[in-house]
Amino acid sequence: MTELRKDPIVGRWVIISTERAKRPHEFPQEQPVRKEGMCPLCPGSERMTPPEILSFRRSGTENEAGWTLRVVPNKFPALRIEGDLGKAGDGIYDRMNGIGAHEVVIETERHDIDLFDLSESQFEDVLWAYRERMLDLKKDRRFKSVIVFKNRGAAAGASLTHSHSQLIALPVVPKLVIEEMTGCREYFRFRDRCLFCDIIVQEMEQKVRIVEESGEFLACAPYAPRFPFETWIIPKRHQCAYEMIERDQAKALAAIFRRTLRRLNLGLENPPFNFIIHSAAFQEGAAEYYHWHIEIMPRLTKMAGFERGSGFYINPTPPEESAKYLRELPE
Amino acid sequence: MTELRKDPIVGRWVIISTERAKRPHEFPQEQPVRKEGMCPLCPGSERMTPPEILSFRRSGTENEAGWTLRVVPNKFPALRIEGDLGKAGDGIYDRMNGIGAHEVVIETERHDIDLFDLSESQFEDVLWAYRERMLDLKKDRRFKSVIVFKNRGAAAGASLTHSHSQLIALPVVPKLVIEEMTGCREYFRFRDRCLFCDIIVQEMEQKVRIVEESGEFLACAPYAPRFPFETWIIPKRHQCAYEMIERDQAKALAAIFRRTLRRLNLGLENPPFNFIIHSAAFQEGAAEYYHWHIEIMPRLTKMAGFERGSGFYINPTPPEESAKYLRELPE
Repeated sequence: MTELRKDPIVGRWVIISTERAKRPHEFPQEQPVRKEGMCPLCPGSERMTPPEILSFRRSGTENEAGWTLRVVPNKFPALRIEGDLGKAGDGIYDRMNGIGAHEVVIETERHDIDLFDLSESQFEDVLWAYRERMLDLKKDRRFKSVIVFKNRGAAAGASLTHSHSQLIALPVVPKLVIEEMTGCREYFRFRDRCLFCDIIVQEMEQKVRIVEESGEFLACAPYAPRFPFETWIIPKRHQCAYEMIERDQAKALAAIFRRTLRRLNLGLENPPFNFIIHSAAFQEGAAEYYHWHIEIMPRLTKMAGFERGSGFYINPTPPEESAKYLRELPE
Repeated sequence: MTELRKDPIVGRWVIISTERAKRPHEFPQEQPVRKEGMCPLCPGSERMTPPEILSFRRSGTENEAGWTLRVVPNKFPALRIEGDLGKAGDGIYDRMNGIGAHEVVIETERHDIDLFDLSESQFEDVLWAYRERMLDLKKDRRFKSVIVFKNRGAAAGASLTHSHSQLIALPVVPKLVIEEMTGCREYFRFRDRCLFCDIIVQEMEQKVRIVEESGEFLACAPYAPRFPFETWIIPKRHQCAYEMIERDQAKALAAIFRRTLRRLNLGLENPPFNFIIHSAAFQEGAAEYYHWHIEIMPRLTKMAGFERGSGFYINPTPPEESAKYLRELPE
């Protein structure tokens, strides 16, 4: 059994994954990266994953080789897709069943390359697959939000080396999404403008935190980054949700997102990193005030201990410096 | 120069520590733990730290050997104590000077032992020193809150092996403190009772998440823990701020806190961990609705990558299991 539990103090929902309950002795032995030679994400291993939900492949084939991208359910999902929510109280506490979707986007058939090694058009396929899956998951009325993210490198939480990202659809809205949407709504009420649209204007004027600007997107360091070399990709077009992107935007996003990851990889010498797509929760009238974007967080510091629990961050690298460094790298 | 900058979206203040700006090539080489034999926190090295602010020592001595506990300013502070706040806008952004206090509590003169190896009475000294420093820092009207925390082990962010904890006094209230105080205030408005007092009642009835109960305190796993074996210490007496503890309470806290750390150390085989004292911000009418407590977070999982940036947690160990395991350990 897996369940979602709510912290009564700050309202944070947490997945308590009792199905794969870890006992104390299991933690040190945990192998974050599987041995090579038995990769379940490689062509030929299609039967090692649950049946595919989406794939870009030679027509007439399915669950066999011949693909360039596959989306499959996570074999060890944090949440399960079947069942009802079973919302219930437990005294002053709140819980519900661990219902949700947990999918893996296998970004390429090649085991030996990274996401940013893909061609722009293959990278665009990955971005389009995110959109396709979000649109599909949105149809399920039990779900309130989808998180799309990538853990790259064992230190960033990746458990398989074959390049992949993940989608988690949730019957609740994660705390950070609520906070961002609340902050943007308050700004909108006060100024009648989108906060991110205002950020774009100021960043384009000041230029000091911009890594790269294209017709459709801005890659920049945020004004108050939590982590060194934290970099965001923000669409210039006002849209509240990622799944609203159109083909031409996906193409433009592939170009700047890929180049930004390549800059980080080159400049920081192959760092572990995470990225997360921040997109409006479903069934919210967020069209006016929220603005989707992508946050990329390289993992350079070991100092995450205190920050991890307190939400209070000390960042030793000013964003103006990190942006300048990344901006001036050869491509 | 160090500055505090506010994220305009979620209102999070971040310390941008430009004085010790890290360049990309500095991160991999970073040595989290200093070599033995030159410990600046050991007796005889008193001149290697800034002059002490507080010490428990043989009378008539100062800044020399003969102590059992010292509090000194951090030699590489994240914030500096002198100057005015210099609050200013930068377009839509907000900033102020990096004013604050950053102190180190050297918990023992012995280099080779851990906090939980101290006797109960020495442990009580450490807890009393936290209180003394908080009361003193509270007098400075520039400060709005103090965070007391410990990073134990390099993986938890400790940069020195000699047992120590830290205090940071801030001219702003950290986001997590605001959130907790807001959540508790809302609960109080709704029910006219303190949320933590209600948590104590329910935990004592259900018993399943209790690690240990004493006359004055509860050591228990929270209902919705973010991390495996996360354990909280909650005073039964309603108090909003840590610095309100009285002598008898400090004594009782030393006993249960020390035993809980010993349980974690034994049961989890010497894990890296952090603890943070959650205490009401200064100058807030929080007496009725907020309730201070201590959160201990062992660092067992490497999966912090995604959680780090999203605020969304997957915990593989149910709190009922972790509490039972710790409860049943031999002392």
